[in-house]
Amino acid sequence: MRSPAQNAQLALLLEVTGTPKPGNVDRTHEYDELRFEQFVAGAVSAMGGLRLAQNGGAVGRSFERSVVGMANQSGGNTQFGALLLVVPLVCTTARDTTRKLTPERVTETVTSTTVEDAVDFYRAFEHVQVAVADPPDDLDALDVRRGAAAESAIRARERTLYDIMALSVPGDLVAREWTTGFEDAFRVADSLAELSGPVADRAATTYLELLAERPDSFVETKHDEETAIDVMERAQAASNGEIDPEQLADELISAGINPGATADIIAAGLYIALERGLSV
Amino acid sequence: MRSPAQNAQLALLLEVTGTPKPGNVDRTHEYDELRFEQFVAGAVSAMGGLRLAQNGGAVGRSFERSVVGMANQSGGNTQFGALLLVVPLVCTTARDTTRKLTPERVTETVTSTTVEDAVDFYRAFEHVQVAVADPPDDLDALDVRRGAAAESAIRARERTLYDIMALSVPGDLVAREWTTGFEDAFRVADSLAELSGPVADRAATTYLELLAERPDSFVETKHDEETAIDVMERAQAASNGEIDPEQLADELISAGINPGATADIIAAGLYIALERGLSV
Repeated sequence: MRSPAQNAQLALLLEVTGTPKPGNVDRTHEYDELRFEQFVAGAVSAMGGLRLAQNGGAVGRSFERSVVGMANQSGGNTQFGALLLVVPLVCTTARDTTRKLTPERVTETVTSTTVEDAVDFYRAFEHVQVAVADPPDDLDALDVRRGAAAESAIRARERTLYDIMALSVPGDLVAREWTTGFEDAFRVADSLAELSGPVADRAATTYLELLAERPDSFVETKHDEETAIDVMERAQAASNGEIDPEQLADELISAGINPGATADIIAAGLYIALERGLSV
Repeated sequence: MRSPAQNAQLALLLEVTGTPKPGNVDRTHEYDELRFEQFVAGAVSAMGGLRLAQNGGAVGRSFERSVVGMANQSGGNTQFGALLLVVPLVCTTARDTTRKLTPERVTETVTSTTVEDAVDFYRAFEHVQVAVADPPDDLDALDVRRGAAAESAIRARERTLYDIMALSVPGDLVAREWTTGFEDAFRVADSLAELSGPVADRAATTYLELLAERPDSFVETKHDEETAIDVMERAQAASNGEIDPEQLADELISAGINPGATADIIAAGLYIALERGLSV
């Protein structure tokens, strides 16, 4: 039986294994400067932080340690967003001997994060370059790109990590998971369990369905709203069989458009599904 | 910095990532009943045994624990042979604070294995179906397929794990590594360091070169000598550019011919190269 941390590591690996996942690195698509093997190395080295989460570590600290490990490869940011979802899930699993994951229990985990968790979250940005949106003017002091330098602002305003995440909704689908009881991740887990065939193929199918549902916030941040809507519409066409998902994958990779938030939620859904007994 | 156990896990994952590795599962080739994702799951769950090796565990026990973990997926044998090489390498790394790997030090590790190591090695066969050659008649009592039942014969004859491996040479290239200071694995590590580009691509190139050098013993065991020689000659043609390695991969996969011993040695070479600082 795999431990929660091992299931988390396997979720990260299965996420990047599923192909085609248009726009994102998968086992048959990669960018010159961001390769499949770097995601693999990221998942290997994130284990220290994942084990900390499993052993009762705080969400922020476990996340920060995971990111430090993940960054131990030459590709840069591989699984920052995925870890931001998977780590609180592992913490939730660890808090209950039955290992049962429910939206309510995950919400309990994230809403009980503290100012210290927020400080550790900001520290994580020191280790890796992450594309993030500009904050509103009045929140400039809390811009995550300030990294550890934002610490005094966080402490002065007494912001918990949950508060920080709530501030990022609706512009960030990963943050939205924190405020909705990981709604999409649990839906992904259900879909993974209902489908048949290799788990990585199920992950790719579910990814395309999710991408077709709403604009990916990471695409919106890195490019613009129009691009994100266009990707969603193309994903709908691919989901309906109007265009070949492989063709869409090639197009998006060529254009450098990677719907990272959707991939992050797939990783979280994979973790939940594995914890519920999905067999590989 | 990755720990020795993490480098071992990464080596297993990079080995299966490299493509094309004609005949073996890699990230673009798989068998219906033995898939890429099962190798990934095997590498995730082998970690307990790899950590035991890193923390000073005996070779046999660490190997057996790795195999129990590895078998925690539905594909059966994924990395049995690779672990039989990687585990003594991790044990060697752990015995020296400088983490320096040399043929002499690895030989010291394997020649100092005991009867207990042999017993644990046989126990590993209880957890997974492994294709092995028939032993000579007078060694029937030591047939590894007897699993734990061979224990009394091993104890009566006072065979160490090194003795058992030495008995399997020359019909088994993995066993041959044990008696030659891991000669091929160290050559693979040199080749990996000399090549350029993504590490998984270097692994695929080195695999093809090694396969072209001599008949793969796993192919000989599973099929026959003629098939193994034919595969070697086809690999020579692919190495020289006379045939497309992708075509050879498709041919071998269709025929169910997987040169597993060569892949195992690549995994061992990857571990040595990673320990020497090869960057991903």
